Amino acid sequence: VPRYKLIIEYVGTPYAGWQAQDGQTTVQGALEGALQKFCGKHIKVTGSGRTDAGVHAIGQVAHIDLDTTESTFTINEAMNFHLKRERISVMRVEQVDEDFHARFHATKRYYRYTILNRRPPPCHEDGFVWHIRAPLDVQRMQEASKSLIGLHDFSAFRAKDCQAESAEKTLDAAEVRHDGDHIFIDVAARSFLYNQVRIITGTLAEIGKKDGAPISMIEEALHGKRRELAGPTAPAHGLCFMKVDF
Amino acid sequence: VPRYKLIIEYVGTPYAGWQAQDGQTTVQGALEGALQKFCGKHIKVTGSGRTDAGVHAIGQVAHIDLDTTESTFTINEAMNFHLKRERISVMRVEQVDEDFHARFHATKRYYRYTILNRRPPPCHEDGFVWHIRAPLDVQRMQEASKSLIGLHDFSAFRAKDCQAESAEKTLDAAEVRHDGDHIFIDVAARSFLYNQVRIITGTLAEIGKKDGAPISMIEEALHGKRRELAGPTAPAHGLCFMKVDF
Repeated sequence: VPRYKLIIEYVGTPYAGWQAQDGQTTVQGALEGALQKFCGKHIKVTGSGRTDAGVHAIGQVAHIDLDTTESTFTINEAMNFHLKRERISVMRVEQVDEDFHARFHATKRYYRYTILNRRPPPCHEDGFVWHIRAPLDVQRMQEASKSLIGLHDFSAFRAKDCQAESAEKTLDAAEVRHDGDHIFIDVAARSFLYNQVRIITGTLAEIGKKDGAPISMIEEALHGKRRELAGPTAPAHGLCFMKVDF
Repeated sequence: VPRYKLIIEYVGTPYAGWQAQDGQTTVQGALEGALQKFCGKHIKVTGSGRTDAGVHAIGQVAHIDLDTTESTFTINEAMNFHLKRERISVMRVEQVDEDFHARFHATKRYYRYTILNRRPPPCHEDGFVWHIRAPLDVQRMQEASKSLIGLHDFSAFRAKDCQAESAEKTLDAAEVRHDGDHIFIDVAARSFLYNQVRIITGTLAEIGKKDGAPISMIEEALHGKRRELAGPTAPAHGLCFMKVDF
């Protein structure tokens, strides 16, 4: 059966995350519903990453096996037609090798976390940014983020219920920059622990605050390996899954 | 009575435009409602431009006369507190001379129109862009936009019910550029006719289409001075009021 790769955008707000769950509205469930309408069968959609409830994507990648004579253009148009009541867009459909795997063959995943750092509440970007009123020192956050790069035991930076066997991960990039009152935290790695990006962001925000945590907090948390040594988990709605390399 | 200048952001989607109207939810009405809660009196809010229903703003300017001993910081915080159920944020409050007038003293107004030019529907930016599926030739649109700059009779580029006495206006800037699948049309002028930016955009989009209108359509419409010589009125939701100079 031919395999297809999908590039998918979505607004995470109305969904209980990526993964299909009984009785819940999920992104995977909505995509499988659209495919069912298109071809009359249940088609499993396998994603590169299982984003949490409220997390957005502009470059989620998934694969499907689909027995059809329709062109990739038609599959793409049909999916978007059946998704028109959803906040999901299929950006591209490509036929790939039958052994391509969206999850196992991903070599790098890119996430962006956006903070809106100003007194007035978010307006145009409500639901897409973490609003922090207290002024953050971006230079301190940049300085602290350097300690995250490379291979580390990220035990302090994973949710208590993270089920990964090992907490050793290599972070390829962690860049903090600002543009006006927006602060962007861009991270990339082969894979991430559960809530890793949100805990990294929460910790950097603590460090950025006036009279906040010391820059060394990141290193201390990495060495101490206990969740309570890192900062709080930043809210889901500031996070966006940007891209996957294979 | 001291006069204050307000810089205001809003999402136009839920509002019947800027101007207060009986029985309608408007931006001016919501701001006046917030001020009433703050000081217990009706305070008139005078804006720089009366945006249409659905049009957004990130730099609307208004003035108010307010007899208070509170600081500008407190006025700003109080307004945002009372606006928390609205999609409006007051970005800044400044005390100004008592003869400052948000509408009559504006020397330049800046608007941006955003087109999303791709097959898949908008997702993150739904409600903030005009979605055009057919590929547009940005170079042709750039070329055509040059004829708009300067002093012209814009009769072809105003709504039938525009009530301005004269259609002679000076357009200071009209720039078309693209960034990925976004096309931005940035215009600036002392003042605009009713629907002028949306008709300019609709005309440029006609010119940008494959086998669309000729580049000379702008010049012909300017010379012919009849509404039907220009393109359609682009939808309100792609338009954003960016900034005002005084």
